[in-house]
Amino acid sequence: MGQKEAHMRTVWWEDGVVKMIDQRLLPHQFEIVAFDNEHDVARAIREMYIRGAPAIGAAAGFGMALAAQRSQAATTEDLLNDLRTAYDVLYASRPTAVNLRWALDRMMALATSLREQPHQVVRDALVAEAQRIADEDIETNQRMARYGAELVPEGANILHHCNTGGLATVDWGTALGVIRMAHEQGKNIHVWVDETRPRLQGARLTAWELMQWGVPMTLIADNAAGYLMWSGQVDLVTVGADRIAANGDVANKIGTYKLAVVAKENNIPFYVVAPTSTIDLQTPTGRDIPIEERDPREVTHVLGQCNIAPEGVNAYNPAFDITPHELVTAIITEYGVVRPPYEENLRRVVEQAEADRKARQASGSV
Amino acid sequence: MGQKEAHMRTVWWEDGVVKMIDQRLLPHQFEIVAFDNEHDVARAIREMYIRGAPAIGAAAGFGMALAAQRSQAATTEDLLNDLRTAYDVLYASRPTAVNLRWALDRMMALATSLREQPHQVVRDALVAEAQRIADEDIETNQRMARYGAELVPEGANILHHCNTGGLATVDWGTALGVIRMAHEQGKNIHVWVDETRPRLQGARLTAWELMQWGVPMTLIADNAAGYLMWSGQVDLVTVGADRIAANGDVANKIGTYKLAVVAKENNIPFYVVAPTSTIDLQTPTGRDIPIEERDPREVTHVLGQCNIAPEGVNAYNPAFDITPHELVTAIITEYGVVRPPYEENLRRVVEQAEADRKARQASGSV
Repeated sequence: MGQKEAHMRTVWWEDGVVKMIDQRLLPHQFEIVAFDNEHDVARAIREMYIRGAPAIGAAAGFGMALAAQRSQAATTEDLLNDLRTAYDVLYASRPTAVNLRWALDRMMALATSLREQPHQVVRDALVAEAQRIADEDIETNQRMARYGAELVPEGANILHHCNTGGLATVDWGTALGVIRMAHEQGKNIHVWVDETRPRLQGARLTAWELMQWGVPMTLIADNAAGYLMWSGQVDLVTVGADRIAANGDVANKIGTYKLAVVAKENNIPFYVVAPTSTIDLQTPTGRDIPIEERDPREVTHVLGQCNIAPEGVNAYNPAFDITPHELVTAIITEYGVVRPPYEENLRRVVEQAEADRKARQASGSV
Repeated sequence: MGQKEAHMRTVWWEDGVVKMIDQRLLPHQFEIVAFDNEHDVARAIREMYIRGAPAIGAAAGFGMALAAQRSQAATTEDLLNDLRTAYDVLYASRPTAVNLRWALDRMMALATSLREQPHQVVRDALVAEAQRIADEDIETNQRMARYGAELVPEGANILHHCNTGGLATVDWGTALGVIRMAHEQGKNIHVWVDETRPRLQGARLTAWELMQWGVPMTLIADNAAGYLMWSGQVDLVTVGADRIAANGDVANKIGTYKLAVVAKENNIPFYVVAPTSTIDLQTPTGRDIPIEERDPREVTHVLGQCNIAPEGVNAYNPAFDITPHELVTAIITEYGVVRPPYEENLRRVVEQAEADRKARQASGSV
């Protein structure tokens, strides 16, 4: 069995194909898969070979690069049409994470801005842009990690939900990246890893990453998190996000909302760690975020194998929930720690990110 | 494969042995096991062949009857000594459910009261008393069910945790018994069954029982319960209890506390359904209730088979949690619906239960 090497990414471009770790098989098998077209990338996102909002965004960017590369178009106009089709294919793969749309929009905006250029110039620019999205993700994560680690007390017990590590991003991680940074700073932390049913990203992926990094951790059933908070064994809760509405409401892995409510009841800080690409100013509140409903078999068959319920049982499987902003102590971004009022302060960091990107473009890095 | 028949009990006495359904195998296998000594009954309780506070109490009563029957004692005094040893063996099987101690105390008190009688009289009386505990459990459950069903609105969506059905009792059920009664009254209810990790009593047992009874139900991951409450899809929450402290704090299956906090946040009634034998006036508050810690393998290996975590992972498995009484809307007992102030009102129903039992004894039914 293979193993993730220290600087291996979750998704990357190699010799004209997109490669990614097949996360469905972890932690018991480690396999790398390669795709040469956007349809397979969309399927890989839908079937969760790759997951985690930032990683989905990077994969979608590479999917657009593949589409540009393999398009038969002989004119830029035809190429843009092919790209619009690829956008729709990739956009439909998962509905909740807004980083997907963010990356697709960024790719499409670049292509459109080059509409007067020869089609080969556009193709090359899109491959470079997808690569840049991936590279920037790591840099963004490490900036968030440094801001976040300042909020982690020495010796803290941290409760973490789902997986937000290197595997949920291109590398390093969001909420788990904060934990990694605090550990590397020698803060003697310990992490309660909840299993995160139904797909067990906590038990399978977060436990695996923390063990590789040497961070002290204990796996628990999702149900045990309340008891730990009530009994004073949790100092802070950290989660990632799949989309943050303009008012600060957070869509994240199912189960996040319960943790936030119980954290508030016990006066425990509840931190969301997410890049500005996760903030969706076009969506006013959490009630406006579409919640993906997945196959009930994820509930009835653990790891796709162990049937835990009677034959013919009726089941329901919403993949995300909404945490109202009143329950969120702070949102940690690559532009610093955002606190209430979120409406105003989130807009500020998004504008800052946008201005920075434009400045980089103007200085010729694009 | 066998199947539970309409009036089959969870645990019963038959020709000098104790029989019970091996619930570890449900819903995929249905098997009945028989035990002829108290050590095997204690093991069956510890290993969860049988679970659910009232069912554990009944099993413990039968365990004492087995001990009385197979004792070699030639005097009542020697018999009482053997019974005291059996008491300790059974008492040690599980620490949280107080019904276990309640049943053992009731058996021991009867034996002690007969200390002037010939030993064969004591043996026969103990078998009869264990039978009576089991019979009364069913009657108690149906009384609770009628009180509880009055609190269930027509067309209600009910969220239910763990298993509190016929399988958690001798027959009929506590919280699930309320649901059964409301269904039989034609109230058009629907039940959200949470899976109840780590041992999946909801997915395995509650789903199975509701399907047998024809009650409309939908299985969910534990993590989805918060989203359902937040999105207005839950009208009330019902749970059982393993022990209720004098102040109304409730020990119940891990995960109960989270549900109670989220129910309160969303102004959803949170009902605990439990017989007076679950109320422990000797325990002042929930902080004084011992929380059983079980094998971490229950977390890492679903159904004992599917390994969901990396090899060598550290895990923690508390089996119960405490729900503070402030979060409990009402406690439904066989002596009616108990509301705050719990300290005073719980004492009243326990005294009523005790007085009734003494009256029945005095009238010669014992």
